[in-house]
Amino acid sequence: MQPQMSCIALGVAELARSRRFYGEGFGWKPVFENNEIIFYQLNGFVLGTWLTTALESDMQRPGLARPGAFALAHNVATRNDVQPVLDRLVLYGGRLLRNAAAPPHGGFRGYVADPDDHAWEIAWNPSWPISPEGHVTFGPP
Amino acid sequence: MQPQMSCIALGVAELARSRRFYGEGFGWKPVFENNEIIFYQLNGFVLGTWLTTALESDMQRPGLARPGAFALAHNVATRNDVQPVLDRLVLYGGRLLRNAAAPPHGGFRGYVADPDDHAWEIAWNPSWPISPEGHVTFGPP
Repeated sequence: MQPQMSCIALGVAELARSRRFYGEGFGWKPVFENNEIIFYQLNGFVLGTWLTTALESDMQRPGLARPGAFALAHNVATRNDVQPVLDRLVLYGGRLLRNAAAPPHGGFRGYVADPDDHAWEIAWNPSWPISPEGHVTFGPP
Repeated sequence: MQPQMSCIALGVAELARSRRFYGEGFGWKPVFENNEIIFYQLNGFVLGTWLTTALESDMQRPGLARPGAFALAHNVATRNDVQPVLDRLVLYGGRLLRNAAAPPHGGFRGYVADPDDHAWEIAWNPSWPISPEGHVTFGPP
């Protein structure tokens, strides 16, 4: 099958609180919103923030837990951009999980949780090229 | 900031079990693997399946729970492709969450959990175009 993911839906408790983090903190502009979901167009796929109750109902899977066993990552252009982005996201409702530091596998990264406890790694990784459209390609360490 | 996500890291208990689901079920070819992580190049970003213990350690966040409050989606070309993909993924270690059906918001979809309880929606959504490279664009319902 095509190596393709069309959407990530993140369960959220309150749309307005989540929109502050993504819409103002990251500065991403919603492409659609109604009273249960907000969509953002990202690099080759769509991010949705969806009321957790609606997500549970659509999946027929109650009892979604947090924090989930996953992390999303946003890459920045330079090492010096990592901590300022973490700090900015905290100002818009995020919670710092780990300050920027150099991991054993290279680059530079820190972690912040969004208002619904979903983890974002903010990373500088010079071996993964980013196109002008934001498409990210794996490169070996 | 650029509307860009570089990577999703999913926590996994066993790399081989997870590789069977993604590498054989979805048929995606790893671009890198070692004894704690496998990376797959998807449409504009990288999917990583990482031992949950290593992910917790890197985030400095023990106690990751499941199932997490999120769903990933893979879109298919026709309505008739949805159930066969769900069935195929179950053969490779997935667990069916919801059989294919028409949701109120349109299209056709079902859900399957990967071997580590991470949910995938398999969806036919004719209003979201998919480029030959797998880049998916939001389109209104």
